[in-house]
Amino acid sequence: MSSEHRFLKACRREPVDCTPVWMMRQAGRYLEEYRELRAKHSFLEMCRTPELAAEVTVQPLRRFELDAAIIFADILLPLPAMGIDLEFAKGEGPVIGNPVRTADDVAALTPIEPERDVPFLSEAIRMVRRELADRVPLIGFSGAPFTLASYIIEGGGSRNFVDTKTLMYGRPEVWHAFLDKVTEVVIAYLKYQIEAGAQALQLFDSWVGILSPRDYEEYVLPYSTRVFEGIGHSVPTIHFGTDTTTLLELMKQAGGDVIGLDWRVELSQAWELLGHDVAVQGNLDPIVLYADQTVIEERVKRVLDSAGGRPGHIFNLGHGILPTVPVENAGFMIDAVHRLSGCPKE
Amino acid sequence: MSSEHRFLKACRREPVDCTPVWMMRQAGRYLEEYRELRAKHSFLEMCRTPELAAEVTVQPLRRFELDAAIIFADILLPLPAMGIDLEFAKGEGPVIGNPVRTADDVAALTPIEPERDVPFLSEAIRMVRRELADRVPLIGFSGAPFTLASYIIEGGGSRNFVDTKTLMYGRPEVWHAFLDKVTEVVIAYLKYQIEAGAQALQLFDSWVGILSPRDYEEYVLPYSTRVFEGIGHSVPTIHFGTDTTTLLELMKQAGGDVIGLDWRVELSQAWELLGHDVAVQGNLDPIVLYADQTVIEERVKRVLDSAGGRPGHIFNLGHGILPTVPVENAGFMIDAVHRLSGCPKE
Repeated sequence: MSSEHRFLKACRREPVDCTPVWMMRQAGRYLEEYRELRAKHSFLEMCRTPELAAEVTVQPLRRFELDAAIIFADILLPLPAMGIDLEFAKGEGPVIGNPVRTADDVAALTPIEPERDVPFLSEAIRMVRRELADRVPLIGFSGAPFTLASYIIEGGGSRNFVDTKTLMYGRPEVWHAFLDKVTEVVIAYLKYQIEAGAQALQLFDSWVGILSPRDYEEYVLPYSTRVFEGIGHSVPTIHFGTDTTTLLELMKQAGGDVIGLDWRVELSQAWELLGHDVAVQGNLDPIVLYADQTVIEERVKRVLDSAGGRPGHIFNLGHGILPTVPVENAGFMIDAVHRLSGCPKE
Repeated sequence: MSSEHRFLKACRREPVDCTPVWMMRQAGRYLEEYRELRAKHSFLEMCRTPELAAEVTVQPLRRFELDAAIIFADILLPLPAMGIDLEFAKGEGPVIGNPVRTADDVAALTPIEPERDVPFLSEAIRMVRRELADRVPLIGFSGAPFTLASYIIEGGGSRNFVDTKTLMYGRPEVWHAFLDKVTEVVIAYLKYQIEAGAQALQLFDSWVGILSPRDYEEYVLPYSTRVFEGIGHSVPTIHFGTDTTTLLELMKQAGGDVIGLDWRVELSQAWELLGHDVAVQGNLDPIVLYADQTVIEERVKRVLDSAGGRPGHIFNLGHGILPTVPVENAGFMIDAVHRLSGCPKE
């Protein structure tokens, strides 16, 4: 039964035989078999073709004893259906042709209908579930309202988020109308993944760490709260961000059974701050995977020690695995988590 | 007497008539008169020509009621004398031709002799002191050992600091030998500025926020500590970083009469955490300067309220002012700090 998986049990803070582990971006470029497929298809083609998305989702599961799969997709996939021109330019990442800046831009955005707009995602989830045959649970995900909104405003990546904050500070009524629309999209997009068979959901608020706690409270908290309320409690939820040390309590308030932690904060301290009535995920620095395996082992042990064997810790990197990480080091880390946390030998 | 300046008093946590304010990068591209000069000279030429460096240092003082000047310079200026090939490529920022990666690279680095290698800096400081005629104090500065070292390793800016952390984790003995050399350069460079007439010093550890507290403690703290010990207590010192919420107590331990705070942390909480036996500087989000003046005023008031009128707060942005900020908003902010903190009308 899937409810017996150690990843799902840890999300609910139930005792587990040993610490579950998965990696953000585990289906990705650090894997040769991913790069081979990617050489033949564009990134969006891979996302939008269920067979390809399903295949790369399970690739890391063939190599490693991971405790969860995460569907191969991109947080920007719902944007075109909202009326946003999205392209993945070669080597440049996402480019948005019509960034949102004004009340009119916001008014022009349309809600999404997942069955019409992102049917490939549902199909990919079903295919992965069949292939996994309940060996490990499958995680679905979405960008959080703030992170999606700032992508749409900036028109791509950003360093200082000048346009996002300028809209937020200068035209709060436009900001709130915009976030309201994005929030509805996120809820519909996540519910669609539950219906298709996602067994847990992660909300990525990857960029929220550029905000002060007061800004988070005023401009973000109401929307992330609505997302967690809107998707209900049928599957466990993970609330992730980076650079969020000063936002952790507010993120917990917004929702999530599990709060993601990057490496900037000592896990034990963050968990103490959050309270032990919530699970935590993290928090190895992804760059540690470039080090020697003795160093990796030592750092894995530090994270496990910091979690102290308390039920409700999911091991993960503090952010996504990088494309140039030696693949054997990823495998070594996963095995080390299991070995050091006392997994029964198979 | 310069010891009566409210900026210097605040550094020593003495009572002041109202809150002193200056801005990181206040001598810079947001000023038209800076851009006019810059159009005629390269960036390095501006740094290395005392008349030009002195001129741009005082430019913002002619416009605004700032409480301190900061010498126009760049944290990378000592690098060429160490044997590093440094260029400022047009529009690309600094580029380092021979990044340090190995023990041999470290062995090849040479100490600097400020009088031979950066005489222009001393001359610029003397010229500014003469022109300011003790109206406001002049701040000198340096990059901190970690931030300088990571620049030299990455060969320029970086997003994930893979090479820096790989060296740190993988070759700790090379890391420590490298930081040892950089630390000596920083001490010599800062002492030279005191001798020339700098009345306060800021140590910029701008990038240190990418580290976990344990990494900071092991790989950075010993060197920043040596810098503060090495420069002594003849002038007040400011220890600055961004993204440093989890590092603040360790940064205080390393040294500095004043600890810099970015906007990610509520000032009152950070000060409580640090203890009130140290002064603080900050912490307005630089992007607030793009908002309407009513918003700027409200945000200035929030920071002042958070400081609670306690002696030892220097108002500043949480990071440098951006080149596209409307110059009148910078002036408005400076006046608002003085007005709202009760400066006597002049």
